Amino acid sequence: MKHIKKIAATAVALSLLAGAGLVQAQQAPKPEQLIKTRQSSFQLVAWHVGRVKASLDGTYNKDDVQRSANAIAAIANSGLGGLFAPGSESGNGWHNTTAKPEAFKDTAKFGQYGAAFAKEASALASVNAGGDVAAIKAQFANLQKTCKTCHDDFKNKE
Amino acid sequence: MKHIKKIAATAVALSLLAGAGLVQAQQAPKPEQLIKTRQSSFQLVAWHVGRVKASLDGTYNKDDVQRSANAIAAIANSGLGGLFAPGSESGNGWHNTTAKPEAFKDTAKFGQYGAAFAKEASALASVNAGGDVAAIKAQFANLQKTCKTCHDDFKNKE
Repeated sequence: MKHIKKIAATAVALSLLAGAGLVQAQQAPKPEQLIKTRQSSFQLVAWHVGRVKASLDGTYNKDDVQRSANAIAAIANSGLGGLFAPGSESGNGWHNTTAKPEAFKDTAKFGQYGAAFAKEASALASVNAGGDVAAIKAQFANLQKTCKTCHDDFKNKE
Repeated sequence: MKHIKKIAATAVALSLLAGAGLVQAQQAPKPEQLIKTRQSSFQLVAWHVGRVKASLDGTYNKDDVQRSANAIAAIANSGLGGLFAPGSESGNGWHNTTAKPEAFKDTAKFGQYGAAFAKEASALASVNAGGDVAAIKAQFANLQKTCKTCHDDFKNKE
């Protein structure tokens, strides 16, 4: 009986391991997919940063800015770091990756920059909800600084 | 004096028109940019739908699903319709557009489908916050239906 229990426990453990392996296999995307997805993420961020800038430079429209600020914040908080997984240092997504090798080496610093980007993006969405254009412009500048800082250290020119 | 006022008023009106034109020029992106941005939007939606599915099929992680559901909802509500502006019916973004001509013809129906997608995506983000996995799975199915319906009518196979 004890023996049977042991076999049963082992079988359960093995099936759990197999299950975990299956999930991991499903969750391990190809480098091309990771690169495509990070390029798509930053294309959308750039697009929506442009939309916010156009609204702040032109006729401010709170709803337009909110939509774009929400998109930037959600993408910034979507787990971007995971898109720079080992194995995706080089290769093509929509185009050849522009990530510098440093993004895969100094992951602590890269992570800090990513967290700063997420923080300032979330703040822009909050500040815009208040509708104070001067405060929104100041927060937008804070956000843009995090883009530049990260690009300087971790992104090659296209 | 009246004449001078009229000239001055005309000059102001012209400069306002020129200003409006400038803003419009800044805001009118090239078809390639629109196509790139909509392809990026749907690449991210597909990516995050895959993340949600993996979590619901495997070991559910509320925070992971929330991050992805927030990204899907923010993108769905980001003004996707504007990315299908006249002039972007054909051409290359990251690749040749897969939008059917119908997307630019039956804009009322396309808009309704887009609104349904935004509604169900926002609902997924709300329902996930409650943490009831059965309810989340049901809402995820509702969301996926809106993807399929729209693809059937408005998207060519890649």
